[in-house]
Amino acid sequence: MLIKLDHIGIAVNSLEEALPFFRDCLGMNLIKIEVVEAQRVRVAFLSLGSETIELIEGTDEQSPIRKFIAKKGEGIHHLCFQVPNLEKSLKELKRKGVRLVDEIPRQGAAGARVAFLHPASSHGVLIELKEEKG
Amino acid sequence: MLIKLDHIGIAVNSLEEALPFFRDCLGMNLIKIEVVEAQRVRVAFLSLGSETIELIEGTDEQSPIRKFIAKKGEGIHHLCFQVPNLEKSLKELKRKGVRLVDEIPRQGAAGARVAFLHPASSHGVLIELKEEKG
Repeated sequence: MLIKLDHIGIAVNSLEEALPFFRDCLGMNLIKIEVVEAQRVRVAFLSLGSETIELIEGTDEQSPIRKFIAKKGEGIHHLCFQVPNLEKSLKELKRKGVRLVDEIPRQGAAGARVAFLHPASSHGVLIELKEEKG
Repeated sequence: MLIKLDHIGIAVNSLEEALPFFRDCLGMNLIKIEVVEAQRVRVAFLSLGSETIELIEGTDEQSPIRKFIAKKGEGIHHLCFQVPNLEKSLKELKRKGVRLVDEIPRQGAAGARVAFLHPASSHGVLIELKEEKG
């Protein structure tokens, strides 16, 4: 499987409270802030050289991000890797016994097609796969 | 501050149990396995394009990695960023009010000079800074 790191997602209580550390202390550049209503989140994309860090804030109590923080506190939430063909990768992983959260791709931030793997198969790491734009 | 991503550290119970997923399912390449006695860990370095993933196994019950897993389970443990001058970065962060775990650099894997920031200042993300080799 051909994958490359797309971004690192970090769950925070508030983008406005977290930005001073990541932008002003670590020197990352804020690219944009976006609301992804389907996932009940507001997301700030920061760049760091060729890497992207995604700060994620839940927009209401039903947001998976708010639930994550309630259980584990703020911190790294997921890693996202790009793949050339998402359906093909999901099929391959399933065949290898990897448990999937999404068997069918769904819509992520910036209109991307994404799917999550279940952390039970990936040693506690929540992994998002994202199809490269063709 | 000029930083770039060096690696993503993932705490696992056993390198041998975790490698099949990261190497054989996700397609990362195993570079080497190393013991860092000072930190009571065994570490597997895997490459993924230009990125490095570090799988970390505690070597005894006193290992911070075993304690981390006992509390939070396997999963992402830290992000490591490279900086050109570690003392200068630590001084700058301290001046900005960031809490440091290590005020003085210590020795990390592969003989690198490293220092950790306290997750209380970095929204739950344990951050390791590593000095670039000159």
